[in-house]
Amino acid sequence: MIVNGHTEIIAHVGFPTHAFKAPMIYNPWFEKAGVNVIVVPMACQAADYAGFLSALFKLGNMRGALITMPHKVATVGLIDVVHPTAAIAGACNAVRRRPDGRLEGDIFDGEGFVRGVRRKGVTLHGGSALVVGAGGVGSAIAASLAAAGVARLALFDVQPASAEGLAARLRAHYPALHIALGSRDPAGFDLVVNGTPMGMNPGDPMPMDVSRIDARTLVGEVVMKSEMTAFLSAAQARGCAVQIGSDMLFEQIPAYLEFFGLPTTTPDVLRSLATLAY
Amino acid sequence: MIVNGHTEIIAHVGFPTHAFKAPMIYNPWFEKAGVNVIVVPMACQAADYAGFLSALFKLGNMRGALITMPHKVATVGLIDVVHPTAAIAGACNAVRRRPDGRLEGDIFDGEGFVRGVRRKGVTLHGGSALVVGAGGVGSAIAASLAAAGVARLALFDVQPASAEGLAARLRAHYPALHIALGSRDPAGFDLVVNGTPMGMNPGDPMPMDVSRIDARTLVGEVVMKSEMTAFLSAAQARGCAVQIGSDMLFEQIPAYLEFFGLPTTTPDVLRSLATLAY
Repeated sequence: MIVNGHTEIIAHVGFPTHAFKAPMIYNPWFEKAGVNVIVVPMACQAADYAGFLSALFKLGNMRGALITMPHKVATVGLIDVVHPTAAIAGACNAVRRRPDGRLEGDIFDGEGFVRGVRRKGVTLHGGSALVVGAGGVGSAIAASLAAAGVARLALFDVQPASAEGLAARLRAHYPALHIALGSRDPAGFDLVVNGTPMGMNPGDPMPMDVSRIDARTLVGEVVMKSEMTAFLSAAQARGCAVQIGSDMLFEQIPAYLEFFGLPTTTPDVLRSLATLAY
Repeated sequence: MIVNGHTEIIAHVGFPTHAFKAPMIYNPWFEKAGVNVIVVPMACQAADYAGFLSALFKLGNMRGALITMPHKVATVGLIDVVHPTAAIAGACNAVRRRPDGRLEGDIFDGEGFVRGVRRKGVTLHGGSALVVGAGGVGSAIAASLAAAGVARLALFDVQPASAEGLAARLRAHYPALHIALGSRDPAGFDLVVNGTPMGMNPGDPMPMDVSRIDARTLVGEVVMKSEMTAFLSAAQARGCAVQIGSDMLFEQIPAYLEFFGLPTTTPDVLRSLATLAY
């Protein structure tokens, strides 16, 4: 990768930066594809973020920004055009400058999740799903499942207000969607998703009662601490097909590449090039 | 070069960026030295610069900034601590954040020139020099020659006010220095320098009367368009030792590396690693 005066920047903005993975996923692809763009980590704290984002996008060689913790929610209020999925998720992690100078943003975590599910042969249109966890990633997944046309969506969060707020935003955009609240019983769904951090630490409780999951249900996970979390292992033991956390990660990269107007490729190619262990 | 969450940034800020050379000089050295720092071009226009510089240095992973056209003069007024050479040059092209948060800056073009001269065995302390051209680079060279202890300095610019202003700033810092103005006669100096852009374009006039240069005089050049400019060729034909423009460039890099607190090396190593043609 040769950085020169023609190099464009994708700023990867968050704090702290130490656990950032995007540079090691995107940059090897850019090098392989001969694209003169580089993802650069930028350690920006919350108090400085609004001013920094504005200043950053005045640069002439900004291709876009990948936004992560703790700025995903704040970004929604700082950009000019918020795409529907980001508006529903209440979070935005990709920003680009339109030709008219306005900043627009979207979030593709949920899109990555949906692409992974589709690649496993599951039809979401008209189907049913349970999403446990209505925080950032759970909300993004719920929003993308709605966009993918699920007919019935159950939402659960240990903080009921989070699930209720998400449901309200979903209803505003998808009035025909049937939304159920207040239960995390996974029985009877085409898809169930752990959208909580349960599984990050040893001894975490299961996000839902695995013994109630049907064998025909696809079971998805957002935790990437290990490839097969205890939750996925238990689901697999029941005969369920599973989607690991990093599937969501690598499936979403092509969506970001498209958003930034860059050449794209398959999740498998991205995974094979990435200079990190997965 | 693997960019990851621990990577620190040296922002290379200017406009336009297309002719930037620093990324191709520094980054190969950082890779070779195992230093997790990257020089990133940032195309910032003059109207946005003050706000951008301030926002940029709030990032937690900023190692420093290399400032170039059109911001070198403005930088002097935007930072908290201006080192003497930058104050005399009226321009600043390297900025770092002090532990107390204040920004401090210096300029090392002239230091690069001086290091190159010393490497050629010329003693500057107590010596004499003529600098033709009192713009940014000429002023920086004059300031560094004064810092190196020359006893007698002649300054010339086709705009006399530029040379007069430079002389006044030099006198304030170096009251014992003998400064002559108004002549570009190169006879009788230990060192003569073309600090003008003359030589960038075919048919440019000589910056001074080469036939008046003594054979014992070292003749230096800032133009990098070609290695041996017409001026240097003419001086060499008179028997003079010469310093090519890119010597100043590669000699100054170690000074910037030191300023940024990074491992340093020799100009020859930097030149051999640089991914550009010189």
